[in-house]
Amino acid sequence: MQIALVQMNVKSGKCEHNFEVLKNYVEKAKNDHADIVVFPEMCISGYMLQDQFLDHAFCEDVASYNERIKELSDGIGIIFGNLYYSPIENVERGRDGRKARFNASFFAYNKQWVKKENGLLDGIHIKHLNPDYRFFDDSRYFLSGIEVSNYLFQTMDGLISPFLFEHQDKTYRIGLEVCEDIWSFDYSVDVTSIYANQNVDFIVNVSTSPYTLNKEVSRNKQLKKHAQQLKEKMPMVFYLNACGMQNTGKNVVVFDGDSSVYDQQGDLVFSLNDEFNEEYKIFDFENMSIAQRCENKILSALTHAVYEFDAQVFPFQPKWIIGLSGGIDSCINAALLVKALGKDRITGYNLASKYNSDTTKGNARLLAERLDIEIREGSIEDINKASLDTLEAYGYKPPYHTLTEENIQARIRGHLLSTFASVENGVIVNNANKIEVALGYCTLYGDSIGAISPIGDLTKVQAFQVARDLNAYFEKEVISNSLIPEIVDGEIKWEMPPSAELKENQLDPMKWYYHDYILQKLLEYPTGNIEMFMESYLDGSIYQTEIGKWIMHYGLNEPEAFINDLEWLLRTFHNAVFKRIQMPPIVVLSRGAFGSDFRESQLGHIKTNQYEKLKEKILAM
Amino acid sequence: MQIALVQMNVKSGKCEHNFEVLKNYVEKAKNDHADIVVFPEMCISGYMLQDQFLDHAFCEDVASYNERIKELSDGIGIIFGNLYYSPIENVERGRDGRKARFNASFFAYNKQWVKKENGLLDGIHIKHLNPDYRFFDDSRYFLSGIEVSNYLFQTMDGLISPFLFEHQDKTYRIGLEVCEDIWSFDYSVDVTSIYANQNVDFIVNVSTSPYTLNKEVSRNKQLKKHAQQLKEKMPMVFYLNACGMQNTGKNVVVFDGDSSVYDQQGDLVFSLNDEFNEEYKIFDFENMSIAQRCENKILSALTHAVYEFDAQVFPFQPKWIIGLSGGIDSCINAALLVKALGKDRITGYNLASKYNSDTTKGNARLLAERLDIEIREGSIEDINKASLDTLEAYGYKPPYHTLTEENIQARIRGHLLSTFASVENGVIVNNANKIEVALGYCTLYGDSIGAISPIGDLTKVQAFQVARDLNAYFEKEVISNSLIPEIVDGEIKWEMPPSAELKENQLDPMKWYYHDYILQKLLEYPTGNIEMFMESYLDGSIYQTEIGKWIMHYGLNEPEAFINDLEWLLRTFHNAVFKRIQMPPIVVLSRGAFGSDFRESQLGHIKTNQYEKLKEKILAM
Repeated sequence: MQIALVQMNVKSGKCEHNFEVLKNYVEKAKNDHADIVVFPEMCISGYMLQDQFLDHAFCEDVASYNERIKELSDGIGIIFGNLYYSPIENVERGRDGRKARFNASFFAYNKQWVKKENGLLDGIHIKHLNPDYRFFDDSRYFLSGIEVSNYLFQTMDGLISPFLFEHQDKTYRIGLEVCEDIWSFDYSVDVTSIYANQNVDFIVNVSTSPYTLNKEVSRNKQLKKHAQQLKEKMPMVFYLNACGMQNTGKNVVVFDGDSSVYDQQGDLVFSLNDEFNEEYKIFDFENMSIAQRCENKILSALTHAVYEFDAQVFPFQPKWIIGLSGGIDSCINAALLVKALGKDRITGYNLASKYNSDTTKGNARLLAERLDIEIREGSIEDINKASLDTLEAYGYKPPYHTLTEENIQARIRGHLLSTFASVENGVIVNNANKIEVALGYCTLYGDSIGAISPIGDLTKVQAFQVARDLNAYFEKEVISNSLIPEIVDGEIKWEMPPSAELKENQLDPMKWYYHDYILQKLLEYPTGNIEMFMESYLDGSIYQTEIGKWIMHYGLNEPEAFINDLEWLLRTFHNAVFKRIQMPPIVVLSRGAFGSDFRESQLGHIKTNQYEKLKEKILAM
Repeated sequence: MQIALVQMNVKSGKCEHNFEVLKNYVEKAKNDHADIVVFPEMCISGYMLQDQFLDHAFCEDVASYNERIKELSDGIGIIFGNLYYSPIENVERGRDGRKARFNASFFAYNKQWVKKENGLLDGIHIKHLNPDYRFFDDSRYFLSGIEVSNYLFQTMDGLISPFLFEHQDKTYRIGLEVCEDIWSFDYSVDVTSIYANQNVDFIVNVSTSPYTLNKEVSRNKQLKKHAQQLKEKMPMVFYLNACGMQNTGKNVVVFDGDSSVYDQQGDLVFSLNDEFNEEYKIFDFENMSIAQRCENKILSALTHAVYEFDAQVFPFQPKWIIGLSGGIDSCINAALLVKALGKDRITGYNLASKYNSDTTKGNARLLAERLDIEIREGSIEDINKASLDTLEAYGYKPPYHTLTEENIQARIRGHLLSTFASVENGVIVNNANKIEVALGYCTLYGDSIGAISPIGDLTKVQAFQVARDLNAYFEKEVISNSLIPEIVDGEIKWEMPPSAELKENQLDPMKWYYHDYILQKLLEYPTGNIEMFMESYLDGSIYQTEIGKWIMHYGLNEPEAFINDLEWLLRTFHNAVFKRIQMPPIVVLSRGAFGSDFRESQLGHIKTNQYEKLKEKILAM
């Protein structure tokens, strides 16, 4: 049995394009004498489409491809994920009152839907486990197999049954799953074990599973856990994932592929690339190979996100406009844009005020030179003066609060970049990193602007590594080493510590490494919470972790200093929600990105009882 | 039996405050010798908290009030909605891997949890029907009663059983529901009929049900439908709703109260105010009364939204900053702010360019005078000149595209308002209406800015009515009648048609009344779609509706003109997603508001097959 796995780059909303791609791969698989060819979840429409799925005519189009794909299946089994949009017996409407939609995997062979052992729903497996966390909203869009089963049989799992693939005088009994179906340990139904207990020959899981750091580790564990529970009943599992980029409005989500085959011990035995690239590869039992893992995964993710976002959202090949302050974040984004889109579509702008040092201006120029991109330099002082004059003309006499003056500068930069974009018919890149986004350390309508925030989910500490990786990629010091700190004897050594350069001798108020760590912990799915961190401070166990040394470094081993800093951090974090509401789409890298992943109401910092008690105990230390 | 209904103004995240309010009402109800007192869904924490519900320590706090409320129940039954946060048998984790959370109603009496007939979960009814449409994400936060029942009994409804309220030598058998439980016709379980078939004495439904226009009509129908199906088994239903405002980040959602009692025929027999106000009222069978319905409901909703948003999100009583162009939208918002917050906290700014007519400037001044608010007037020309000079200094020589010059003006206004806000420690109101938001007829970081968009879900046509209502409220022509059109013989008559005044003789490109109608149709839950509209054009039935005359008015009865306009509208609408992603929170009024109600990926306009076919047919007419 030869199974062709197609780790397809599915383009959101481009149904006809995706179908053509699928069709070509089916041809290829036929030529290669594959027995079955597999495509990912929602491979025709894409998966993260938000309320596009509420459009009736669109859903009819998407589902109409099911028959067209079936027609391609002469001589080859085709397993693919797509929308099912016909009533299932009396289940005509979804819980939203609209015609019911189902996220499903399909199995066609010889222009027929492959029959199932229970005789129900030939050729179709409805996704049973609907994820509704992070950026997933499956229950908003799809009725689950559990719900259908509830309706039809008053059971949870009455639909699950092996597909009978009759091929070359043998009947293969195959289980189909969709994505979350294999991540069952927090659900009432375990699709994998139901198939296993029906002794299927193997399971094919079609996914569109977003990349987040170290996801493959979780997946390998998940499969191992299934194997440990199911023992000799554990079937082989073919996990076929999409690659590419899809967007949720507030987030840009990338898919690394990393399609994997697991054996009956739950061990990984075969895989496709995890470098976000489309790939076609035939699995047979004599041809096992595990793909080499991507190095510099975060940089790959970022490159892919920018490349695909540009290609899919801005098909007119716009100029990319970037403010180049000479600081590390703008340097990273400039280098990233060049890596993803080539040097000719990038223009950097240095927007200097009297507070910008010659060094940062020089850094910006040097960066542009080394990247060989256009740079335009000038001053914001004219507009700054006009702004202050106008402010006075409106009856507001100086002196002004420093922050007012800082915000004016930042907004003038936003205004100018927008104006350049308007002249160039270009789009602006946002330079904020995750810590700035978290703390609202940016001026709304100033440096908060842009069409995409590539590193808005990257901590500053992670950014240092990406900077090093970019220099390695370009094989030169594109990003000045003076911007990248070294840790020497527990001290941060850098020539140019981060500064917004909005007033004299300004330095960012962040406690690098330490705040990076807390904010990441606070947001992380599913365990993020601050009280656990406070407990580890209280019982001293924090000093056994990497962060202990930073607590010492910043003098936060002194309890009052620790609490003062923490209160500032949490207050600042929660008060910045209003800025995040209006920020550009952020590329998701972590397990807790702002946007449609980590969703926020404006509530301010709510101090829990546990927090207050821990605070009291810490202050009494 | 006397039942005290407390239509409480629940404040998001303010648990201790909400508890104090509840406690006082319990005291009051005891003094009034009520037998039972009822509070709304999630009356301690609020309901629309987004991922605040993922915070473990916060959930523990919220749930800890259950015992505290139980302790208040000596001599009185207390029914209230709150979070349940203890494992139910082996259901320890939710589908998100976190400790399971449940949205529940509780029933305490004499410091005990009221027992249920089936002996399961004393005092607690888990919400069975989880809404996951519009701004609802219940499945993201809560396990439903159906899911618990699945886990425990492999049934869907094994938990539902009457509460046995033993009071004054009689046992009342009472059904408890939470909100959506009564909106069951698109779900696999009908909680109301299960209670009815168990012959309960009555049902108490606790809700936090958002206001949208004419919701009471749907609710009355819903209850009537239950009555028709259940016939003589239909019990009385006490529907108790919250009032107030809660925010989802991207939206400001208001609750009108409108708590209602329905008799065994499903007819409304008793109600509390629907004017968004907290109210305490005792129902007894001798004391039936239906509250007078709110006039000018939309204006009430807007006032309430602004008032509560200000009070809850900005408790420091900031100045409100508003750009006063003299156009109708800014006039409405200024009047609204004064109505909601009083005149002393509002400052208007006229930000004139050479394109602004004396008439609109005069209108702005007159409005400020009539509202008795501060107005500051000045010019943006200095900054405009500096901007153009700087643009040239960056190597971009004139002439510029008109749009570039228009956007510069708009962004300077955004910049100045932000600067004023910074000096005044104030917040900015966004003036966009729904049609502008839909079509992106605004400049990002220019007139798209602000802390809240009060009328971002109000069509221009609805805005005319709100303007009239505001003039009626103030008993003078606060908003110049010259801005409000009259329809005379099918023609729109107005002295001052809407204009952005960003270039000479500019008029807005919208086809008022007609575009208002289509965009509303397109977005409306649950039926919104464009193809139905095109079909009604094709078969001529459109001319039997109110919109027919506008089609004639704009010459769109000519098929090519109709299609050209429609394509422009849809393309413009879908291309504006990137702006909406970065816009301020919008107050929800309709059944399809941009933000967390109507959610959008950046996909562009996807033309469906049905659309293409209808277009072809129309062009062949």
